[in-house]
Amino acid sequence: MKQFQIALLGFGTVGSGVYRIISENGAQIAHREGIELSVGHILVRDFEHEPNLELAPRALFTTSFDEILSDDSINIVVECMGGIEPAKTFIIRALEAGKTVVTSNKEVMSKNWPAFEKAAKATGAGLYLEATVGGGIPIIRTILDSMQANNITRVMGIINGTTNYILTQMTENGQSFEDALKDAQALGYAEANPTADVEGYDAMYKLSILSSMSFHAHMPIEVIYREGITKLTKADFETAQLLNYRIKLLAIGKKDGNKIEVRVHPTMIPATHPLASVRGVFNAIFLTGHAVDDVMLYGRGAGCMPTASAVVSDIVYACHHEKQHKYMTFVNEASMSSEIELVKDFHCIYCIRLNVADRPGTMANIAAAFAEQGVSLKSVIQLGENDGVTSRITFLTHAASEFGVREALKKIESLSCVNAVESMIRVEE
Amino acid sequence: MKQFQIALLGFGTVGSGVYRIISENGAQIAHREGIELSVGHILVRDFEHEPNLELAPRALFTTSFDEILSDDSINIVVECMGGIEPAKTFIIRALEAGKTVVTSNKEVMSKNWPAFEKAAKATGAGLYLEATVGGGIPIIRTILDSMQANNITRVMGIINGTTNYILTQMTENGQSFEDALKDAQALGYAEANPTADVEGYDAMYKLSILSSMSFHAHMPIEVIYREGITKLTKADFETAQLLNYRIKLLAIGKKDGNKIEVRVHPTMIPATHPLASVRGVFNAIFLTGHAVDDVMLYGRGAGCMPTASAVVSDIVYACHHEKQHKYMTFVNEASMSSEIELVKDFHCIYCIRLNVADRPGTMANIAAAFAEQGVSLKSVIQLGENDGVTSRITFLTHAASEFGVREALKKIESLSCVNAVESMIRVEE
Repeated sequence: MKQFQIALLGFGTVGSGVYRIISENGAQIAHREGIELSVGHILVRDFEHEPNLELAPRALFTTSFDEILSDDSINIVVECMGGIEPAKTFIIRALEAGKTVVTSNKEVMSKNWPAFEKAAKATGAGLYLEATVGGGIPIIRTILDSMQANNITRVMGIINGTTNYILTQMTENGQSFEDALKDAQALGYAEANPTADVEGYDAMYKLSILSSMSFHAHMPIEVIYREGITKLTKADFETAQLLNYRIKLLAIGKKDGNKIEVRVHPTMIPATHPLASVRGVFNAIFLTGHAVDDVMLYGRGAGCMPTASAVVSDIVYACHHEKQHKYMTFVNEASMSSEIELVKDFHCIYCIRLNVADRPGTMANIAAAFAEQGVSLKSVIQLGENDGVTSRITFLTHAASEFGVREALKKIESLSCVNAVESMIRVEE
Repeated sequence: MKQFQIALLGFGTVGSGVYRIISENGAQIAHREGIELSVGHILVRDFEHEPNLELAPRALFTTSFDEILSDDSINIVVECMGGIEPAKTFIIRALEAGKTVVTSNKEVMSKNWPAFEKAAKATGAGLYLEATVGGGIPIIRTILDSMQANNITRVMGIINGTTNYILTQMTENGQSFEDALKDAQALGYAEANPTADVEGYDAMYKLSILSSMSFHAHMPIEVIYREGITKLTKADFETAQLLNYRIKLLAIGKKDGNKIEVRVHPTMIPATHPLASVRGVFNAIFLTGHAVDDVMLYGRGAGCMPTASAVVSDIVYACHHEKQHKYMTFVNEASMSSEIELVKDFHCIYCIRLNVADRPGTMANIAAAFAEQGVSLKSVIQLGENDGVTSRITFLTHAASEFGVREALKKIESLSCVNAVESMIRVEE
């Protein structure tokens, strides 16, 4: 039986989960897959502050990456440290040494993909990243191994569990953002510094990976429009409820010919949409292919064992393909070339809520500002209380230009009859 | 570039879709995957009755399987004829000739899997069947290539689009079974003879495949409990609505240690369950793995292009693995051996509706009959109209033995105070 020796870089949630699966399910994997996995080294920062030292034999732990690199028996390096450095350096050096890398680190991956891919190709090492997106959901494998017959035209998903938990609480229990965040922190779903999640950075890293793979065109994080969930208010959820929408933080990539748009922002979707019923920390990703039409994958987007499950699946896959690792071919390998046109002025439906002075002419002025920018209105709804002096009006547009809507709102904000643009939320149907 | 020549057996919905994808997307597949696909022969029954003859050059068509078999340039045979013969013979002969087989035929596959697997192994040919279950949904690849770290303990899904369309109509529009079936037939979702779909045979074939793969134990169709949707009435949907359940035809496989249960029947699931929102002809399959927890895959379970997408994905996969096709290892290779205990007396929750005489002692007699069989009741609800003479009572049990419930219902049916056991529907939560 073929034997493969693994080194784990990092022994936190994911690393310890991988170790556990290999220990507990190694015999089953050997029986079913014909390969024998073992862990040869576990790299930790230092021995004093490592909380999981008791979970593996002391002899496996090391603080020296060079020890791992110079050990010829190590075939596969699993990077689950997170962050940029030293993860980036270790990944590059492992690939340069011809060792296959499996990673769960979306940030380092989304920021260094071309360099990693180049290093892997040069030595014939494999580079696997199923665990970077959607935890245990096999979305990467699906795109690479099940969609070969398709032009993927859309990838759209809930790929951050923390924000989905918060939005679920705000939807179902009427919580404020602050209270829902506190709950998420208490439950360990959100970190003490929640910025990466609630401001959409984590979803942006993942969308960079998902859209690059789906469209075979590298979409670096810099080209992704990003907006977090921190400004959402109870009033937004009331508005959504009344319109029979749900608010989700969606990562959206669309491709039409050579035009691509990539964006992460709070989005209203119909309550009957399959993504609307994805609650709590669960993730789900919708793919649209020209042949397969809509496919959705749903599951736990994070957590020790689900993510470790994805890492081990990559390890087994890498073992089976040790002499024929595949590499991504991007049509815009070197730069955002002319082959791809990045659409920054995307088009969608907008739900806009204004606080206005309740007097004649208000509506005419607002409507004129929208019309000036070619934004056509589908419906206008007066919602909530009306004190006779000010009122809240919600506009739902037809598909309109992002830039046009932004310009219109600038103008509308400056109108004397408008007290505030309370919110602008994009809609997908 | 590696070249692969394909023969299509059958040129109906799926076969013509495969031809179309290879024609239209062949260049893209070549660019991304490094393999060149071409269709060398198309087998049809006869030229006169073939409706799709104009979709491919006349020279490709043949009525002779031997011509295909003796053509050494053919690497891969795609069987999309449906039915048992001649599909079975052709598959066996192709595999014996060392040609890889890709099939979309769930019936022939579920009834002949061990023989096919043996023939494939003997010559090193590949055997691929993604398109047999869930149309374009990559469920087979997910089980085989993404769940290696997991003991799969449950597979549960909506895997027949025809019945799901009918049940959606009955749920949302209050249609009778007969009317919904007529609509499905008019739309081409149901065949003139709908038995295979509405009696659960199609779902049974697919569950045989899914559960065998998930549990690495061969589950022939004979061991699957099967019940169709023809007896469901409007009253059942009203009951479900009131209990906040939805009725779906679910295929369910569960594994607990060496105990396995496999069954297809109408099932009530909570309205908030992700499977509850799977509407119309869509399919969805839930997998539960010990590491990954719940994963669900959703998409179009049938249709020309989705199914052809799965076939082409299998073809590309087979090309990449031409020298290392994998074979299923079943723990019960030879027979339903002692390694696996098949649970026929499974346990679940039951929703039972009775029509009873409205007189003292009725409830006591019924409750006694349940208690005698160890069936414990969770709730008793009197629903619908009550004319003072007869009434309808709905019982929801705690998890109970299937055999116990059947025995209790036999006894209850014989009670003089019971007019009829109107329905018994299993519940999953």
